[in-house]
Amino acid sequence: MAGNSFGTLFRITTAGESHGPANVVIIDGVPPGLALEEADLIPDLQRRRPGQSKLTTQRQEADAPRILSGVFEGKTTGTSIAVLFENNDQRSRDYSDIKDKYRPGHADYTFDAKYGLRDYRGGGRSSARETVARVAAGAIAKKLLAERCGVRVLGYVKQVGDITADISDPAAVTLDQVEANPVRCPDAAAAEKMTALIEKVRAEQDSIGGVSELVAVGVPAGWGEPVFDKLRADIAKAMFSLPAVMGVEFGAGFAVARSRGTDNNDVFTTDGDRIVTATNRHGGMLGGISSGMPIVLRCAIKPTSSLSQPQQTVTRDGQPTTISTKGRHDPCLLPRFVPMGEAMLAITLADHYLRHKAQCG
Amino acid sequence: MAGNSFGTLFRITTAGESHGPANVVIIDGVPPGLALEEADLIPDLQRRRPGQSKLTTQRQEADAPRILSGVFEGKTTGTSIAVLFENNDQRSRDYSDIKDKYRPGHADYTFDAKYGLRDYRGGGRSSARETVARVAAGAIAKKLLAERCGVRVLGYVKQVGDITADISDPAAVTLDQVEANPVRCPDAAAAEKMTALIEKVRAEQDSIGGVSELVAVGVPAGWGEPVFDKLRADIAKAMFSLPAVMGVEFGAGFAVARSRGTDNNDVFTTDGDRIVTATNRHGGMLGGISSGMPIVLRCAIKPTSSLSQPQQTVTRDGQPTTISTKGRHDPCLLPRFVPMGEAMLAITLADHYLRHKAQCG
Amino acid sequence: MAGNSFGTLFRITTAGESHGPANVVIIDGVPPGLALEEADLIPDLQRRRPGQSKLTTQRQEADAPRILSGVFEGKTTGTSIAVLFENNDQRSRDYSDIKDKYRPGHADYTFDAKYGLRDYRGGGRSSARETVARVAAGAIAKKLLAERCGVRVLGYVKQVGDITADISDPAAVTLDQVEANPVRCPDAAAAEKMTALIEKVRAEQDSIGGVSELVAVGVPAGWGEPVFDKLRADIAKAMFSLPAVMGVEFGAGFAVARSRGTDNNDVFTTDGDRIVTATNRHGGMLGGISSGMPIVLRCAIKPTSSLSQPQQTVTRDGQPTTISTKGRHDPCLLPRFVPMGEAMLAITLADHYLRHKAQCG
Amino acid sequence: MAGNSFGTLFRITTAGESHGPANVVIIDGVPPGLALEEADLIPDLQRRRPGQSKLTTQRQEADAPRILSGVFEGKTTGTSIAVLFENNDQRSRDYSDIKDKYRPGHADYTFDAKYGLRDYRGGGRSSARETVARVAAGAIAKKLLAERCGVRVLGYVKQVGDITADISDPAAVTLDQVEANPVRCPDAAAAEKMTALIEKVRAEQDSIGGVSELVAVGVPAGWGEPVFDKLRADIAKAMFSLPAVMGVEFGAGFAVARSRGTDNNDVFTTDGDRIVTATNRHGGMLGGISSGMPIVLRCAIKPTSSLSQPQQTVTRDGQPTTISTKGRHDPCLLPRFVPMGEAMLAITLADHYLRHKAQCG
Repeated sequence: MAGNSFGTLFRITTAGESHGPANVVIIDGVPPGLALEEADLIPDLQRRRPGQSKLTTQRQEADAPRILSGVFEGKTTGTSIAVLFENNDQRSRDYSDIKDKYRPGHADYTFDAKYGLRDYRGGGRSSARETVARVAAGAIAKKLLAERCGVRVLGYVKQVGDITADISDPAAVTLDQVEANPVRCPDAAAAEKMTALIEKVRAEQDSIGGVSELVAVGVPAGWGEPVFDKLRADIAKAMFSLPAVMGVEFGAGFAVARSRGTDNNDVFTTDGDRIVTATNRHGGMLGGISSGMPIVLRCAIKPTSSLSQPQQTVTRDGQPTTISTKGRHDPCLLPRFVPMGEAMLAITLADHYLRHKAQCG
Repeated sequence: MAGNSFGTLFRITTAGESHGPANVVIIDGVPPGLALEEADLIPDLQRRRPGQSKLTTQRQEADAPRILSGVFEGKTTGTSIAVLFENNDQRSRDYSDIKDKYRPGHADYTFDAKYGLRDYRGGGRSSARETVARVAAGAIAKKLLAERCGVRVLGYVKQVGDITADISDPAAVTLDQVEANPVRCPDAAAAEKMTALIEKVRAEQDSIGGVSELVAVGVPAGWGEPVFDKLRADIAKAMFSLPAVMGVEFGAGFAVARSRGTDNNDVFTTDGDRIVTATNRHGGMLGGISSGMPIVLRCAIKPTSSLSQPQQTVTRDGQPTTISTKGRHDPCLLPRFVPMGEAMLAITLADHYLRHKAQCG
Repeated sequence: MAGNSFGTLFRITTAGESHGPANVVIIDGVPPGLALEEADLIPDLQRRRPGQSKLTTQRQEADAPRILSGVFEGKTTGTSIAVLFENNDQRSRDYSDIKDKYRPGHADYTFDAKYGLRDYRGGGRSSARETVARVAAGAIAKKLLAERCGVRVLGYVKQVGDITADISDPAAVTLDQVEANPVRCPDAAAAEKMTALIEKVRAEQDSIGGVSELVAVGVPAGWGEPVFDKLRADIAKAMFSLPAVMGVEFGAGFAVARSRGTDNNDVFTTDGDRIVTATNRHGGMLGGISSGMPIVLRCAIKPTSSLSQPQQTVTRDGQPTTISTKGRHDPCLLPRFVPMGEAMLAITLADHYLRHKAQCG
Repeated sequence: MAGNSFGTLFRITTAGESHGPANVVIIDGVPPGLALEEADLIPDLQRRRPGQSKLTTQRQEADAPRILSGVFEGKTTGTSIAVLFENNDQRSRDYSDIKDKYRPGHADYTFDAKYGLRDYRGGGRSSARETVARVAAGAIAKKLLAERCGVRVLGYVKQVGDITADISDPAAVTLDQVEANPVRCPDAAAAEKMTALIEKVRAEQDSIGGVSELVAVGVPAGWGEPVFDKLRADIAKAMFSLPAVMGVEFGAGFAVARSRGTDNNDVFTTDGDRIVTATNRHGGMLGGISSGMPIVLRCAIKPTSSLSQPQQTVTRDGQPTTISTKGRHDPCLLPRFVPMGEAMLAITLADHYLRHKAQCG
């Protein structure tokens, strides 16, 4: 099936380049009767928006969503919902520098290799601009999950460079804590250090990587599929489909490599009537199916590839040259990754909610 | 789409439980004219087979593949290929202990929560027995990739517990090096220590986790899709669909969290006529599309959940109890994970090879 | 997605050639807890079986289904169900005649054109042998529809040559009426004439076409999708995926070409509490969604292409020659089409039942 | 998969209601390097447009396409193409009459039954307005087929009421012949009678059905799939997904019911080097795969359901009432069906072109 769609029943399809006229997303499979208006999409779009703080790029995008279909008298109708974003900030520029040079870490070369040509303006289809569509769709998925299932999806910054936040219980973190600082780290002390580090890196015309942790609370036991469409497999695909993600781990993650079965197994016990595990090293899924425990995962995000200092590269013809990507870039992608990661997690969960309802509901 | 299928054009569909009569895989989309016979499937099936060494479970499965369709006069016909595995070792046992108790780390509880019932014999559909189907399909994918594209797929054990292999160039590792020892680690010194550790852990009725590294050499620049079906996203889904995988990382992986753009970017240069990157921290894909550099990834595998020593758990009714999973289990999943990981990597690459050929060939 | 699968949630995947070792179907998405055993598949398989009466081919196939997975202690588990049919009647024959000649009306030439080679034994993958897999899956779909939704699916022969059955109410026809004669026509008088015509045609070494009518009773209003996956579109695809189908029409069908809106519209009225239409020229679906009225459609089936009298054709090299397809062929495909058509209708309805439940249930 | 998408590799996804702000289509899988601009979409959009002649509704829609993505410097980039149509003619009206009444022949009742609510303005998502998106995508598919494969797709009106056009060779009909009269019938004499009939029917506040014939010339032997995704199955689904289609037949169609094998089989012969059939009763496909002969099919279109004279119906509460659908409706859908049918045929062929290239190219 085509590569610009994601999901089986709750399914999104996107189009649009960073410097084209508009970006658009079609969301298919949304149940009817969900209250929805454009204002519901704004908060997460604001969190994704460039220029929201001194830690992010100062590029300005209005990101005003326009719902074109699928909503009538304030409610979803069950038919496909299209959301349009006009790209107002597409002033004419001089792209001659990047037209024939390959920016390190970007998809310029691989697009040329695949398609034989590319929209070289600001990354074209490979730009993070494309995620505006996902965040809008994610806001709808979140609303569906919250209102129909009591599920809450939240992300935050866990690590920037060598600064790691101290989060005792991922499931207890609140949106207010996350939004309390521009770096989106609920550990205020760590957030301050992260901010200082990001500013230092920016001053040095460099960039820095990090880790975002994402949590879904309230997912009942039973969502997911046991073989290829394991819930963790679909969530991982969702995350790796976002720009700059180099690693994904669930629960104990890569630490399991060093652990023993006696330490790593989460034993079953009860919490009132509910069967639960005493610990959550499994990250909320067993055998690809949700266990009722919080779903917890982490994504490793590489440092921004665009640097204003010169980097070595080659031209389309293979001639050595240097390139410095001028303009406004995030010195650290993490703060803006948080709403993108939340959106993809929510979309994946909404899809599996519907899939589970179809077969076992 | 249904959860027992994987892939878009090169597509596999599987069925079968660990203790049911048989396992079967249908492989759709294989190009016509590929030489194929059952003997082509045997080597990887032998590598996956239980009981192959003292490091793995001593359970015996013949794993004799029977090709039911799609091959005529020694060549693929282009129609769907079915491969059948009769499960000979399904002697009647006493399952009363695991019937009503939830094994920690297994999918017993989540299956009950999802379906309301489960095949409790040896894990049923969630058993690693299911991967016999994948490994057979993977052998076909490998043959297609090798003969039509010159692509070679190989995996090995990179880490067991705190012992890490020293591999200077993942792309230079050979199958012979990997198969030189039962732990499947091409670093002979590390392999020896890993073996000792696994035997110690087994003696202690415990299990141990690890990391497997997988490499695809020869993938041309241009395979993959730029948005949701990024090559790394589909590979990651493939890996996380295998049992016990808790983390996946590409190239520099989680280490990017600590790195700067100036360090992490792989600059473009040339190798003769070819445009290449000087380093390969990006792991062979940029923007979801292969760069022509080796594809390199690592999977974190948890320690086997089945332990012969007693563990706390609850019954279906939530009553506290203990369980010790008798029988023959791998103390470390890593050696047998290698062919499974290779199979899923090869299947994903074969699918993207066909997808690329369709649109851009 | 791959061409050997059908359906979105209730999804079947098949493999097998007419003269290969076996045919197999994997059925994905069946809800858990449905009582199922091999005996449930037998009745429809018997109706599809060659050699069942003097009107059909005398070829003998045992068609004994073997359930390999997805059923435990007599109930579906929710995991994929595989059903295997060993092809016992694959004695070695002399295929030299059809190996290099193209049988008129068959897929010999088009397979060669597509794949460059073909399994020339008895039609290979394009043989109606493949429908044994569909009929088995259809029996499961019928059981699901009957037990969970109260839906009944039935087909019969409406026309053979110029003999047309008189059926006043398609929704009132019973299985007993259909099975009362080997031609499967519930109008006993017409059935007698059809039988005589088929025997006459057979004696003349010829074949004859016909029309089968299919009915689904009890489908509630609301199944289906409004745009591309209209219920009638998916049903039509299901029918045209069967061998020899040249036309499909719903309700009034092609007769609408001659009719006026005032005559053709079915006005809405009530039947007790239910909103119904006074007539059913629309065939049970409006705008792609079921209306609660019986679903009624007809399929035009061409006369068997295999003839024992010589026909002109060419060899693979384009040399003129003649061919007479020896062996045992149905002089009229209609009686055996009935269970195939029912199976595909049931599978399509089961899929839309699950899809509707997912979004609107 | 979601019901607002069609196709596997060449895949379209649509959104939009008749009286919502806009309609949009995303076209995925278009090969890169195809010359494309908005002007390429205009001719077919003009042919679909309401108000184009006295035979169609006088409603005015500008139908100006705006390409939002996937085209750069006049060429397709290989990424998803979005085309937007603003709905300018959505003036506020009084819908109180149709809000609570069910129009016979329309999807009002079935939408309410499915979703529990509906956009009652002018048909909402079930309106033929939705086909504007398909026709735009079809124009791209036609261009791809013409430029890369030499395939030409054309439709025309074959029958209106009891007037049938005399077309000796469907493959020889030209676009000029079709567009020579507003009824789109290449038989000028029949066209005149059809026009008179349609005007008479309109004067009588009634509507009339008909048949459209569609032809694809130049499709090479080998496109299609042998089992579920038979080329004729996918084409039939495409046709039945259009509004008002009640029957589809290929080649000899329903006439096969009356014919014998000796008459119906198309014998193979040669035309120069090419293997061809002497006749084309099979309609250009054998066993689901194109034979190299022209693809020929016919669609039966019901008379417009909307009538300005009063019809009996019920309200949402089941109370008897009457309704007369005021406004501007086509008295005969056939002339405007032609570009819609062509579009869906072209989209299906483009998809199978890519699928064939992937596996066998």
